Amino acid sequence: MKLASLKSGGRDGTLVVLDQFGDRAVKVPQIAPTMQSALDNWADVEVELRSVYRLLNQGKLNDAFALDIKQLHAPLPRAYQWADGSAYLPHVELVRKSRGAEVPASFYTDPLMYQGGSDMFLGPADAIELADEAYGCDFEAEVAVVTDDVPMGVDAEEARDHIKLIMLVNDVSLRNLIPAELEKGFGFFHGKPSSAFSPAAITPDELGDAWDGGKVHLALRSMINGQLFGDPGAGTDMTFDFGQLIAHAAKTRHLGAGTIIGSGTISNQDRSHGHACIMEKRMLEKLQTGTATTPFLKFGDRVKIEMLNNDGHSIFGPIEQQVVKYERLRRAA
Amino acid sequence: MKLASLKSGGRDGTLVVLDQFGDRAVKVPQIAPTMQSALDNWADVEVELRSVYRLLNQGKLNDAFALDIKQLHAPLPRAYQWADGSAYLPHVELVRKSRGAEVPASFYTDPLMYQGGSDMFLGPADAIELADEAYGCDFEAEVAVVTDDVPMGVDAEEARDHIKLIMLVNDVSLRNLIPAELEKGFGFFHGKPSSAFSPAAITPDELGDAWDGGKVHLALRSMINGQLFGDPGAGTDMTFDFGQLIAHAAKTRHLGAGTIIGSGTISNQDRSHGHACIMEKRMLEKLQTGTATTPFLKFGDRVKIEMLNNDGHSIFGPIEQQVVKYERLRRAA
Repeated sequence: MKLASLKSGGRDGTLVVLDQFGDRAVKVPQIAPTMQSALDNWADVEVELRSVYRLLNQGKLNDAFALDIKQLHAPLPRAYQWADGSAYLPHVELVRKSRGAEVPASFYTDPLMYQGGSDMFLGPADAIELADEAYGCDFEAEVAVVTDDVPMGVDAEEARDHIKLIMLVNDVSLRNLIPAELEKGFGFFHGKPSSAFSPAAITPDELGDAWDGGKVHLALRSMINGQLFGDPGAGTDMTFDFGQLIAHAAKTRHLGAGTIIGSGTISNQDRSHGHACIMEKRMLEKLQTGTATTPFLKFGDRVKIEMLNNDGHSIFGPIEQQVVKYERLRRAA
Repeated sequence: MKLASLKSGGRDGTLVVLDQFGDRAVKVPQIAPTMQSALDNWADVEVELRSVYRLLNQGKLNDAFALDIKQLHAPLPRAYQWADGSAYLPHVELVRKSRGAEVPASFYTDPLMYQGGSDMFLGPADAIELADEAYGCDFEAEVAVVTDDVPMGVDAEEARDHIKLIMLVNDVSLRNLIPAELEKGFGFFHGKPSSAFSPAAITPDELGDAWDGGKVHLALRSMINGQLFGDPGAGTDMTFDFGQLIAHAAKTRHLGAGTIIGSGTISNQDRSHGHACIMEKRMLEKLQTGTATTPFLKFGDRVKIEMLNNDGHSIFGPIEQQVVKYERLRRAA
């Protein structure tokens, strides 16, 4: 099943069921008005939503309409929790290597995770508003899952059962703000502005054999200005699967329905498939030649992130964003 | 005006207007069903809510009922953003001193702030569920403000106008998990489980002269098991006021309506009024005698946090919580 949120009906949008190709949509106010309300009552609404999905795919719903992804919010336009892991150790190893530091042994058993801002996500076609190119704007292509209610102390195996939906993320990062921010000791804030999400949030069964219960075994493809930047495997070198990431998040607290858990930037030991963020390429350049040459994103640049199935179909639909200069009208004095 | 959320009507509770003493309440479904919906439409609903408040205080509302704070959620039972500052530098100075480190000069101009979990807040009388006393459970007594929509790049002065409500917070902290967590570099996660909030969220005018637009000039009183632990001044030694904290949070992104910004643990240079968290007392003990003797919270301990006005009235109502052992029933194999 594929779900999305239309940009209508208020801040939380309007829940729609998409067909399997993401081409057509239908509203389901009789089942749940918003994505969050569906997640709040998932056990009660899932069967009904799946029934609509089946009928939509069979072409039996007269109120279905053609969809343009510009009409879409993030599947959760705002969420109560966005906790992003850093589950691909090749990425962490490269970050450390680039500053001449070792990866602590504990990093292979204890996931890195940060609490992200979730009050205003970007839709799949929304602009990335950037005040200053000097911030070093980067994309990070990731997979994320959405949970129902998760009890404190859940173990990794049980945690997998709490995965209800899967999405793609562009975890926009302002690289030049991050070192000083992390140095302060309280984690990310300015360095992680609003993240963007794929058009569709899908149930795991849509992935067929590519979903093993905790990882997605498909390549995640990123393009900058129409050029392939990388298509590393999302199931490769993921040291912690989503079950482990959820269990980590729930160690000292319950997680509310609609919690989004991210994988972190996808990164493979085998660098031949490129990268899922610019910083990684820059670090390699620096290690190899002494100079990072690939620039961060500039005003006007376009980023596209999507995941294709074996038939070449875009499973979640594309995240397609342009970086624009943010200029604010000041209040008159 | 004083507002609160009843534990009825679903995960977000039911918005109620409280009378000026917090003794009686009235539901306002005709204006806004929940606190978040009121904040989403603040400019449209504020006048109507204030009218209800006036009539309630005049004893003119027949549907008003007596209130027990056990019936209450946090004013926002769950929120889209909880960003907690650390605005009282005496606290930061003591933390640094206790580990033999200097406070960087930048800390006096650039606020510390972390992104907190906001998916499941605790109500003012809800238990603090703790899996293990060895985690070192502490309270942190703070003031927090709730904003409407704040544009990216707002300055500190303008930011003050976005403060719509004020609350008290118990930012529960698991002290013995924090050092290793911060060492990882991504900020707090396990160390900051669910925070609890005061019964009432109040509009700034309720504070009269004690509100200067950016700080609350009253003592915040904390008690453990009925004994006064500290009553430092919330307006004293607050290096960054709420305008500055909001501007900091909005540097690289917009903030959505219902964003909660916390002050951090209140802490005064003058230690004669005690402390707003146990850790601070322990650090002083260690510096003075070599040994921290005041224990962290144990199962069964009670914490009370409140702020009294000059007439001795509890302005926000009390946060009154007990620490209980969390034991989870595992799923049958």
